[in-house]
Amino acid sequence: MITILAGGVGGARFADGLVQAVGPENVMVVVNTADDFNLYGLRICPDIDTVLYTLAGIADQVQGWGIGGDTRATLHGIAAFGEEPWFLLGDRDFATHILRTYWLRNGTPLGAVVDRLRRSLGVETAIHPMSDDPVATQIDTPDGRLAFQDYFVRRRQQDQVIGVEFEGVASARRNEAALNAINSADLVLFAPSNPIVSIGPILAVDGFREALARNRAPVVAVSPIIGGKALKGPADKMLTSLGHETSALGVARIYAGIIDAFVIDRVDRHQSAAIEGLGIQVLATDAIMHDVADRGRLAGEVLTFGQTLKVKAPA
Amino acid sequence: MITILAGGVGGARFADGLVQAVGPENVMVVVNTADDFNLYGLRICPDIDTVLYTLAGIADQVQGWGIGGDTRATLHGIAAFGEEPWFLLGDRDFATHILRTYWLRNGTPLGAVVDRLRRSLGVETAIHPMSDDPVATQIDTPDGRLAFQDYFVRRRQQDQVIGVEFEGVASARRNEAALNAINSADLVLFAPSNPIVSIGPILAVDGFREALARNRAPVVAVSPIIGGKALKGPADKMLTSLGHETSALGVARIYAGIIDAFVIDRVDRHQSAAIEGLGIQVLATDAIMHDVADRGRLAGEVLTFGQTLKVKAPA
Repeated sequence: MITILAGGVGGARFADGLVQAVGPENVMVVVNTADDFNLYGLRICPDIDTVLYTLAGIADQVQGWGIGGDTRATLHGIAAFGEEPWFLLGDRDFATHILRTYWLRNGTPLGAVVDRLRRSLGVETAIHPMSDDPVATQIDTPDGRLAFQDYFVRRRQQDQVIGVEFEGVASARRNEAALNAINSADLVLFAPSNPIVSIGPILAVDGFREALARNRAPVVAVSPIIGGKALKGPADKMLTSLGHETSALGVARIYAGIIDAFVIDRVDRHQSAAIEGLGIQVLATDAIMHDVADRGRLAGEVLTFGQTLKVKAPA
Repeated sequence: MITILAGGVGGARFADGLVQAVGPENVMVVVNTADDFNLYGLRICPDIDTVLYTLAGIADQVQGWGIGGDTRATLHGIAAFGEEPWFLLGDRDFATHILRTYWLRNGTPLGAVVDRLRRSLGVETAIHPMSDDPVATQIDTPDGRLAFQDYFVRRRQQDQVIGVEFEGVASARRNEAALNAINSADLVLFAPSNPIVSIGPILAVDGFREALARNRAPVVAVSPIIGGKALKGPADKMLTSLGHETSALGVARIYAGIIDAFVIDRVDRHQSAAIEGLGIQVLATDAIMHDVADRGRLAGEVLTFGQTLKVKAPA
């Protein structure tokens, strides 16, 4: 059983590759929920939905998020009523947000809501939010504090990031199914997601870091930085402005003490020794997922690599 | 200034005719809200929306409710997630329900919400809910009590109606703009809406019946029953099962003491004397609105008739 920690489009695509490689029933995904937010009174969970739609095979192939072929009549109606349509929600997609909000308000925990959604979409892979409680990433910029989606979508990641806070994470209770997914895994993978705002919040939830240390299964991360650039999104700029080295090595330093091994791209091979110096084993391969077939190929290589890793001694 | 009490499709179409006849700025509409309900956590106001869409010129011409040419992707999505799609909401239409629910939850009263919606849609005619507080029509049947839309839409008005209750009406505060619309009108019209479940709830709200009696302007109702049949909906069956005579005269008896005059169809001319015996003046004309032009024609005739009525002596 393989458990992936994931957020965003890269995480969803990597999870999809793993499902291709080992079958949906052998994968569990623990998803970042710190970029969840409220819009027009609806609860939106972008990372959860991207994983959901990708594993259901209905994600928009080009943009990576949303539902392929979805229309935007509802959003046009909302704009006609004078509300700014800055977050691009589709009509089919609205069904997800309406029902999630409805079920949450009726007292169903987020984990159970996600479970119902994914079963309805025919997704056999278990998807667990990191927490059923709200956590909200706040981005500090020279112009002040921004809610994550304001920074990420509305202002298109133009602001310099000088600080990040996961508001509510200290009191957020871990989702127990997510904890079990980590505890029972034979291999734990960190998807090539943003280490600061996608994997970071998951690791900040009470109990997960300890569970990763306690579990004897190897923990392997895939680098989201290749040749000093993020595959997608603002991870590179964010690492730089927060004082990290913007490289595979920089990410490895963030994960040092938590992961056993790191998968980097061949172009970053020259950093292998430095990464190994942190006590982290390295696999250098083609770490870019160019297409759907590539997702399966990368996942297969990561798995083969994972099997070569020694099981840790009990903590 | 003319104020219409209205509910449902017939009321919306009659209001539209009046707007054609005298211009949008000379009409105010007080709308029934007792068939409002919650669906998937959204607040739906069917009568308000039918008036809104009809006056905005975007209503579906055939069915009378909803937005013409609207799609149903969101509802299909909701059905795919296992919720029954028994109430046919369109994608554009969902924008109305989402924003109304959002604004209501933020503390905006229903009247102000409706005002914002109608201004956004370019509707110049003031539309006032009878109350900002929830009132919920309950239908008693031999099989038990049904919420109004369960009876009306889900079960297609098949149940015998043995009782009607407007739950919450005793504590519902009247919308003050609606009261002003009645107080300031030179002519008050009851649209050819269901007298029990459309006009009935409005008259049951504290203050409206008294305002109608106090105002010296004539009060004229248009019969929704022609030749013993309802123009639309279950008014005929409902009148019968509740022990009323299912005729123009039967409706006149319900309105006796409240209205000064009644507009009936020529086919019901034989009931004129009996209606006049109730102290109600009668206009017999072609009371069916076959098409959009007919709405204007009927409204014009009702207006001309209204002008012949003596202003009441002060109460």
